[in-house]
Amino acid sequence: MFPDRGRQVRVLGVDPGLTRCGLGVVDGGLGRSVTCVAVDVVRTPADAELATRLLRISDAVEHWLDVHRPEAVAVERVFSQHNVRTVMGTAQAGGVVALNAARRGLPVVFHTPSEVKAAVTGSGRADKAQVTGMVTRLLKLESQPKPADAADALALAICHLWREPMRERLAAAEEKAAQLARAHKAKLAAAAKDRARRAADDTNSGRNTRR
Amino acid sequence: MFPDRGRQVRVLGVDPGLTRCGLGVVDGGLGRSVTCVAVDVVRTPADAELATRLLRISDAVEHWLDVHRPEAVAVERVFSQHNVRTVMGTAQAGGVVALNAARRGLPVVFHTPSEVKAAVTGSGRADKAQVTGMVTRLLKLESQPKPADAADALALAICHLWREPMRERLAAAEEKAAQLARAHKAKLAAAAKDRARRAADDTNSGRNTRR
Repeated sequence: MFPDRGRQVRVLGVDPGLTRCGLGVVDGGLGRSVTCVAVDVVRTPADAELATRLLRISDAVEHWLDVHRPEAVAVERVFSQHNVRTVMGTAQAGGVVALNAARRGLPVVFHTPSEVKAAVTGSGRADKAQVTGMVTRLLKLESQPKPADAADALALAICHLWREPMRERLAAAEEKAAQLARAHKAKLAAAAKDRARRAADDTNSGRNTRR
Repeated sequence: MFPDRGRQVRVLGVDPGLTRCGLGVVDGGLGRSVTCVAVDVVRTPADAELATRLLRISDAVEHWLDVHRPEAVAVERVFSQHNVRTVMGTAQAGGVVALNAARRGLPVVFHTPSEVKAAVTGSGRADKAQVTGMVTRLLKLESQPKPADAADALALAICHLWREPMRERLAAAEEKAAQLARAHKAKLAAAAKDRARRAADDTNSGRNTRR
């Protein structure tokens, strides 16, 4: 996804939710400054049917994918919260966003809130105000993005831009290490087989000489 | 959705899940016997990416909607369960299914597990075996649908066929009652206004006579 270090990449960050769904598009790359391309919040009425609300969110996301053409989508990973009903809606909205991206062959990565906070502020336990403040500074915005869902969407996109190359390099390094380990194991096995074969030959030749 | 009592309706029931997603199509109507049209379980590998898994489920549901052309979709409403991770996946899969249906303008209704159990067995606290047993009998199947997710999907469709007309009639009755209440309130308000106007006229005419 990020073949060259420092290549400019465009990411759509999504803070999923039925009542407010934050969308933020950010350009950037590892070791590059980040630029805000677009940010908004999609709202759906609480009295609308669930399927209708999901459809509106899906339509908005499709529109953003059409207009901004991001190369990857970063979605907040939801864990259990206080309100089970809210969590369900959030998960459903997140699932719909992931589906939209997958339909276009775009990579979708889920980041936890603490990963996002750590990437943007340096601390996984930063509060909303700190996240919004850092997002505003990093993107050199003239005013703070509001509501918090908008700032969170931008934070997700930044987190993805900075975390994903690291994660991919780590995965590549692990894969290489695993390959080396497999090669070493195969060499050991071949050597053991060879020893066993030679031992058998020795026994056979021993038998032959005894006959 | 069910304009005439007893009209034949086709419903797709979905027991959402990432590992196993139950799909069942049932024909029936209020006061009619129910017939199984199709039943299956879509599986997605646990090691695949979430977005890929959601895409496979979505593709399968789209295919079923194309082939069986149901008039409504019934999805299990998920509440908190023991495993938060499983619940999230279930909610995401359910959201994707609702989106697919909404895209085609099909009504999507979520039913709770206890509503489904009550509709099929008469008890909201029936166990899995009782639900499967009743589904098998109601649909006159030669063998029990397996796994449980397949039986649950059929139970959802049956629940929808039997509950939804009731629910719609109840909603219609409630709407009519609300209309009557509004009309009555308006009549009272008009009468009060009329009384106030006549009282003011009397006062004015009293003043006039006093002058």
